[in-house]
Amino acid sequence: MRNLTLLTDFYELTMMQAYHHHQVTTGRKQVAVFDMFYRENPCGNGYAVAAGLQQVIDYINELSFTDDDIAYLRSTGTFGEAFLEYLKNFRFSGNIYAVPEGTVVFPGEPLLQVVAPLMEAQLIETAILNIINHQSLIATKSARVCWAAKGDRVLEFGLRRAQGPDAGVYGARAAMIGGCSATSNVLAGQMFDVPVRGTHAHSWIMSFDTELEAFLYYAELYPQACVLLVDTYDTLRSGVPNAIKVFEKMRAKGIMLANYGIRLDSGDLAYLSKEARKMLDGAGFADAFISASNDLDEYLISDLKNQGAKISLWGVGTHLITSKEYPAFGGVYKMAALSTDGGEWQHKIKLSEDPIKVTNPGVKKIFRLYDGESGKMKADLIALAEEQLDNKEDLTIFDPIATWKRMTLKKDEFIVRELMQPVFKDGKCVYPTLTVSEICAYAALERDTLWDEHKRLFKPHLMPVDLSQKLYDLKQSMIAALRG
Amino acid sequence: MRNLTLLTDFYELTMMQAYHHHQVTTGRKQVAVFDMFYRENPCGNGYAVAAGLQQVIDYINELSFTDDDIAYLRSTGTFGEAFLEYLKNFRFSGNIYAVPEGTVVFPGEPLLQVVAPLMEAQLIETAILNIINHQSLIATKSARVCWAAKGDRVLEFGLRRAQGPDAGVYGARAAMIGGCSATSNVLAGQMFDVPVRGTHAHSWIMSFDTELEAFLYYAELYPQACVLLVDTYDTLRSGVPNAIKVFEKMRAKGIMLANYGIRLDSGDLAYLSKEARKMLDGAGFADAFISASNDLDEYLISDLKNQGAKISLWGVGTHLITSKEYPAFGGVYKMAALSTDGGEWQHKIKLSEDPIKVTNPGVKKIFRLYDGESGKMKADLIALAEEQLDNKEDLTIFDPIATWKRMTLKKDEFIVRELMQPVFKDGKCVYPTLTVSEICAYAALERDTLWDEHKRLFKPHLMPVDLSQKLYDLKQSMIAALRG
Repeated sequence: MRNLTLLTDFYELTMMQAYHHHQVTTGRKQVAVFDMFYRENPCGNGYAVAAGLQQVIDYINELSFTDDDIAYLRSTGTFGEAFLEYLKNFRFSGNIYAVPEGTVVFPGEPLLQVVAPLMEAQLIETAILNIINHQSLIATKSARVCWAAKGDRVLEFGLRRAQGPDAGVYGARAAMIGGCSATSNVLAGQMFDVPVRGTHAHSWIMSFDTELEAFLYYAELYPQACVLLVDTYDTLRSGVPNAIKVFEKMRAKGIMLANYGIRLDSGDLAYLSKEARKMLDGAGFADAFISASNDLDEYLISDLKNQGAKISLWGVGTHLITSKEYPAFGGVYKMAALSTDGGEWQHKIKLSEDPIKVTNPGVKKIFRLYDGESGKMKADLIALAEEQLDNKEDLTIFDPIATWKRMTLKKDEFIVRELMQPVFKDGKCVYPTLTVSEICAYAALERDTLWDEHKRLFKPHLMPVDLSQKLYDLKQSMIAALRG
Repeated sequence: MRNLTLLTDFYELTMMQAYHHHQVTTGRKQVAVFDMFYRENPCGNGYAVAAGLQQVIDYINELSFTDDDIAYLRSTGTFGEAFLEYLKNFRFSGNIYAVPEGTVVFPGEPLLQVVAPLMEAQLIETAILNIINHQSLIATKSARVCWAAKGDRVLEFGLRRAQGPDAGVYGARAAMIGGCSATSNVLAGQMFDVPVRGTHAHSWIMSFDTELEAFLYYAELYPQACVLLVDTYDTLRSGVPNAIKVFEKMRAKGIMLANYGIRLDSGDLAYLSKEARKMLDGAGFADAFISASNDLDEYLISDLKNQGAKISLWGVGTHLITSKEYPAFGGVYKMAALSTDGGEWQHKIKLSEDPIKVTNPGVKKIFRLYDGESGKMKADLIALAEEQLDNKEDLTIFDPIATWKRMTLKKDEFIVRELMQPVFKDGKCVYPTLTVSEICAYAALERDTLWDEHKRLFKPHLMPVDLSQKLYDLKQSMIAALRG
């Protein structure tokens, strides 16, 4: 496990030293609540998929300053010995709550909440944002791409275009959580026990004198997973006919053809796939599948399917692994409350000219509300931590900006679930270690709680994320006091 | 040093096993030449900045399959014992040539060339592309941002929005190579010995009862680097006046104010900086600098400067660390030649309907041509490895697609430099380890070899990248043969 303790912005450490100095000189201990949330769904999507929590857990578990780290910080000339001494035995001692990975989430609600001594909560801001922002971005993009593929398998193929090794590895992990069936990334396969896939490249074909020779050699070696790349010279005049010759030879030899087909990697994929389908079917290979790659994204996949492309397996690279059209998730980490020497929470709010950017004060939790009959999600309600909610009474919720937009849920006809789970308690991890395949299964169920209208690629129907009356009143009174 | 051996696409390994099988069964040893190059400058720039070579060197040096790696590969059910046995003692044994990091490069020319046993050359494709694509992208974006800042310092502030830890760390490295003065990323500072910077966040202000109290506390602790964030409540009515009060107190106490100023992080940066400048100047703090952050990129910086914004230090985050408008470099790795059992090079070409996508065959080198008087670059000439070039004769070069576009360089009036350097020789690194600050110094000189017309943000003047007559003729004859 890598120690990423110094994976932080310098100002977290200068603030941390200042907080430490404040604590030492005043003798007062401050505990803070920070919310990690985001303000806009990536790519105009109707929701986001939370991901990266396991890597945050690993990071917190490993959090400690080595002698080299201390020596390096000393060398910057910014830190005094008292603070460096404090760092020597530093361990995270606070609480963390978070929504499980794979959960469908919405703008404005905390994905993760830190309740910890101010110094500690400040230090971990940057790494938490880095990890959750990245993986939630790619998981969300992946969910879009898989949605466009309408049940076809999607393979994550982007390692060579990922923004560095981690972006490839953790991007592959997030892509699986978003719905991909496999990745080309071997290291991700090893680390997360997820399926890896891939056959050959153009260079394989080019290393033989003829395409047919290259195909034959490959098919004999890998009869159990024989996917031939047919576009090196000429897809319909050379590639597909040669692939058919190979399949015929294998059939003649009595080799069972099971998982086999062709891959298109250039040209017009709608036209080529339909022509190739006819040729394969005509030769008696109706069960040979056609896979495609080449700069695919959710829009192109959707359009190709609308045009009747005969493709059932999609290899998606650059657009998925970088979320090319929207490459930053934009999650932030904001102070919501502060307590001194164990006293009451002092609520904190950050104002902005833009109503959507005014933060939600206080220690909060999220209630998710479902329709009892369909099991589909109706809304999220952000409430104060001390609030309780059940379905024994009618519940009226309202939009926190356009307050006239109201909805009443009839008692017994809705289901309430609290979203955030305890992850660290007094610095100890209390959260189970889940496999990626467990997270993927949960994530698929989560996406099923949304109506299709929320999953549309363009202008999806937006899920209400409302505030409880108590939280709404608190927020309004704080705004009035600060503006008064 | 991390072992990234399995950071590869699965098909590299299936092809590798197939090549291994071919070699064992035929007894023939194949050596291949692969070129890594790209086809389009990021962000419409007039050039790119090569970066990432040191991490490729580290990767190759560490390349070896651990017992765990072998066991994992066995578990996929795809690899036989003969191949797994071969992997046990696998080390890279080939040659690598590359342009130095920080070099200004252009589409179509090899940034890196691998000459190695086919199996080995195939394995390393993915990691080389991943590393060079990422760092060259960010270095290029950084060069654009720094160009827009016209000599002002630019700080890399993007870690929290980077696509995972590596994207933050190596992105910071690349941003420095592109021209940034410092980074907020402490781990990057430690790993690459580059300056780190940062002061405090809104949370610092919010943790005190008043903004003034927060400023005072901070200034007393950090008088040597006192940059106060002034937009938490109201920039001009609260933040700047409070900052001035603090600066006055420090002056009254006789504290030398040296490196001090304010940071704007919201609102209209042109208006606010001009007003803040007047207020600071009026209070006798003409040497207090104004820094700015908040979703900056090269376009906004350029426009703010055109409007006379009084900002001299720019903190750039998301747009730089993700190259947001163009988040994938698009480098590829293509076979250019193959030799069997030490025989002559068999040239390889990949055709495409699009002339720009037809690869350049053969073992090549790059001559860079400079004007002797100004020292500015005139063109690049891609030639075959056996060609020599000096300035003892007039040289006429021509565009390889629009061949009527010709330019003659008069003998003795131009300078020739060969770009690619040996990096690995028979598997051993023969390239010096350079510090990032050495690379940065070289990269700055490299950018100076371009006229401003090549550095314009929009529609820059394009640098000619031509082929030698010999390479041009070879390419044409191969196209004719394949199409005939």
